[in-house]
Amino acid sequence: MASKALAIIAGVGPGTGASIARRFAQTYSVVLLSRNPDNYEPLVQEINSKGGQAIGISTDVSDANSVNAAFDQIAKQFPDSVLAATIFNPGGGMVRKPFLELTEDDYSSAIKSQGNGGFNIAKRALPLLLEAKDSIPHPPTLIFTGATASLKGSANFATFASAKFALRALAQSLAREFGPRGIHVSHAIIDGVIDIPRTKAWTFEHEDAKLSPDAIAESYWHLHTQPRSTFAFELDLRPYVEKW
Amino acid sequence: MASKALAIIAGVGPGTGASIARRFAQTYSVVLLSRNPDNYEPLVQEINSKGGQAIGISTDVSDANSVNAAFDQIAKQFPDSVLAATIFNPGGGMVRKPFLELTEDDYSSAIKSQGNGGFNIAKRALPLLLEAKDSIPHPPTLIFTGATASLKGSANFATFASAKFALRALAQSLAREFGPRGIHVSHAIIDGVIDIPRTKAWTFEHEDAKLSPDAIAESYWHLHTQPRSTFAFELDLRPYVEKW
Amino acid sequence: MASKALAIIAGVGPGTGASIARRFAQTYSVVLLSRNPDNYEPLVQEINSKGGQAIGISTDVSDANSVNAAFDQIAKQFPDSVLAATIFNPGGGMVRKPFLELTEDDYSSAIKSQGNGGFNIAKRALPLLLEAKDSIPHPPTLIFTGATASLKGSANFATFASAKFALRALAQSLAREFGPRGIHVSHAIIDGVIDIPRTKAWTFEHEDAKLSPDAIAESYWHLHTQPRSTFAFELDLRPYVEKW
Amino acid sequence: MASKALAIIAGVGPGTGASIARRFAQTYSVVLLSRNPDNYEPLVQEINSKGGQAIGISTDVSDANSVNAAFDQIAKQFPDSVLAATIFNPGGGMVRKPFLELTEDDYSSAIKSQGNGGFNIAKRALPLLLEAKDSIPHPPTLIFTGATASLKGSANFATFASAKFALRALAQSLAREFGPRGIHVSHAIIDGVIDIPRTKAWTFEHEDAKLSPDAIAESYWHLHTQPRSTFAFELDLRPYVEKW
Repeated sequence: MASKALAIIAGVGPGTGASIARRFAQTYSVVLLSRNPDNYEPLVQEINSKGGQAIGISTDVSDANSVNAAFDQIAKQFPDSVLAATIFNPGGGMVRKPFLELTEDDYSSAIKSQGNGGFNIAKRALPLLLEAKDSIPHPPTLIFTGATASLKGSANFATFASAKFALRALAQSLAREFGPRGIHVSHAIIDGVIDIPRTKAWTFEHEDAKLSPDAIAESYWHLHTQPRSTFAFELDLRPYVEKW
Repeated sequence: MASKALAIIAGVGPGTGASIARRFAQTYSVVLLSRNPDNYEPLVQEINSKGGQAIGISTDVSDANSVNAAFDQIAKQFPDSVLAATIFNPGGGMVRKPFLELTEDDYSSAIKSQGNGGFNIAKRALPLLLEAKDSIPHPPTLIFTGATASLKGSANFATFASAKFALRALAQSLAREFGPRGIHVSHAIIDGVIDIPRTKAWTFEHEDAKLSPDAIAESYWHLHTQPRSTFAFELDLRPYVEKW
Repeated sequence: MASKALAIIAGVGPGTGASIARRFAQTYSVVLLSRNPDNYEPLVQEINSKGGQAIGISTDVSDANSVNAAFDQIAKQFPDSVLAATIFNPGGGMVRKPFLELTEDDYSSAIKSQGNGGFNIAKRALPLLLEAKDSIPHPPTLIFTGATASLKGSANFATFASAKFALRALAQSLAREFGPRGIHVSHAIIDGVIDIPRTKAWTFEHEDAKLSPDAIAESYWHLHTQPRSTFAFELDLRPYVEKW
Repeated sequence: MASKALAIIAGVGPGTGASIARRFAQTYSVVLLSRNPDNYEPLVQEINSKGGQAIGISTDVSDANSVNAAFDQIAKQFPDSVLAATIFNPGGGMVRKPFLELTEDDYSSAIKSQGNGGFNIAKRALPLLLEAKDSIPHPPTLIFTGATASLKGSANFATFASAKFALRALAQSLAREFGPRGIHVSHAIIDGVIDIPRTKAWTFEHEDAKLSPDAIAESYWHLHTQPRSTFAFELDLRPYVEKW
């Protein structure tokens, strides 16, 4: 029996990453990367117990060595699987502070987790996605998660916006270089508060004012299923009541 | 038995409009608007013969009276149906000419078919979409079809770009006004040549270099199924080998 | 003695247009176009009395015949003058209303004054600007005045945003077509309230919270003086305290 | 006699930085920062010999310690001068390579010279610009030099585009935070080849196809002279024959 293809989700916590993992696990074996095993262990169990296949690897995406070790382990554990999709969905780097209170370390660590993180993951994922091209029904896919700060450098967001702008530049450059080679590179702009455990207590005047992580995951899956004749590069997602 | 909800597709020829109509006809009764009945008659037959429900109405979207007559006829023919979706997908106004050879009539007719057309359709569709809100499983949806010229005013495209920029402004304004009222307004940027009968003879160096109208339709349907917590406003679609 | 070159300012009232006229009148003879002679007469007197040269012509920019008559009159009155600059600075079309209260006439008249207006003026000005190329020290210049609504379709601004988006598309298209022919086409985004007689009573929390029409005019003059090696296409101007 | 105010130009070689220095030296004492003293020494001599006042400080903008040392030295050498303007005009980080050949070091060093560089300079300059507010005729100004890659992530430009997008985010964020405090923060997009010694041998089909560094400097000076009621944030500069 052929091995199932893989999806790698980098940046998995109890929120969007988990929903993406569940969605892609309906079709693929999923590999969950997060620094802290607490972030993926319950989800690995959940997916495996429901008949899916999942593993987690403790990985710091901002560290090339750590990313390399993760991909080496994936190659060992899934020697016969091709890579169908990789989702870069990191949480780090979000700081809101007056500029003069920011430290260079705030700047560097935002860039590290978003920019270098995206770079490191793309470097290892793209050769595998290129190899997978003729073995899977959908074009191999690399999706980056953006934010409001991907398009707008707001006051007090100098470091996070720098990092998210940088990640978007990376995504555009990869889409233009690897699109013609058959890889679907996309960038999703998540504009609003996501409805995850950490934001449960945040209340809004209107119902449904927080983004549904399952709906985000459904849009990511839709991107993955697009044929190469009709790739979307960018998609902005926000609650109906969000100001923009 | 409850009547099926409706989808109205304005701008139906043998290409994208037809694919959108077929896709939405899987769930809804569809109303096809086009100036020339030749554009919708075969499709109306096809959909009805396959168990769907379709009618066509000869309509000039750039003429408010014609649009009003069409919506009045729809109300008569489907007195018990709510309006689930409206797609504005006009073909007109595409002229490529050195600026000094363009006439004011080129300018006005591009604006008329795209800008006034979108305005006229939105004026009649939005009140019905607002009424439908609690009767259908997905948020009522209004999608506008854009083009490369929606974002870039290229040399020799002064009239078409003006018209497509205007339509995008309309879409943004409606998304911001009617989103909070529960209506999903979207704008899709179609960046490339669509694979339709008119472009069959256009050959490209690479396979799959033309957009698939069925894949465009699938993305429109995906937009329609998004919950109000997670609306996409804009989506750019292009072939993998397209320069952008 | 050689005749002074000309600058045409279309859309002159007591505000920005007047400041632009005064600035360009320091070097050129100026022609002021406005529907209502009350808008230019005091300014024509003022400029002439201070040693400049100015005429006014009652012109409806949205009407090609009216624009043609104006340019014919200019040719007669200044048979030996070349056209150094044209500024399109129309006031019309600004309506703020819920979409369902807008009429198609609101839509058409906004587009008429901004889109068709820009088209009509550009059609007559560009051939003259092309002729002027080697006779004046600065590259012949065509500047369009944009607004916040040139970039953002806000709720309740469907018609004005459509018109201003359309004008920006026209400006881009002309810049790409006529730039390589030596004409400097620019688009200035005026983002905020301008300090003109009509807004005198509008007070803000902070000083200097309204744009200075003289400072806008100074930036337009700066654009005009740029050499062809270093053209700016777009410039956004706003008060220091403006939210954006 | 009052001390002249200062302008700091970070990133000075024989090209744009030198032109900016010469332009601002007409009014201010100028401080030239560059890693390599060879880059500023001839210019320091030239400016001083023509009656201006200039010093150079060997500085690595990507290193906070080096930037701090430079600003400490400036404070000592000009104890009575206020800071009127700072221009961030770094050259580093430009690499054009297929993505899979790029190293993480390419990524980090591009970000370091543009992103961290801009961050380090802004951190030290902004407090001084805030102090200068009421002592100089023009609003204190901080200008960042961008590039084509500030707006577009092209194929093979993943690292440089990331760095330039990041710098633009920083500039936007600072403009929104410090604009309301009276500081003019701007971002200039230089879209094309600049006519500097390094590009002398590059020939183009058309004359004047390279940007003039003196004209760029003139536009920077224009930005500096804008009153706070009428700040430009962004300006794109390109040769008349440039494709965009």
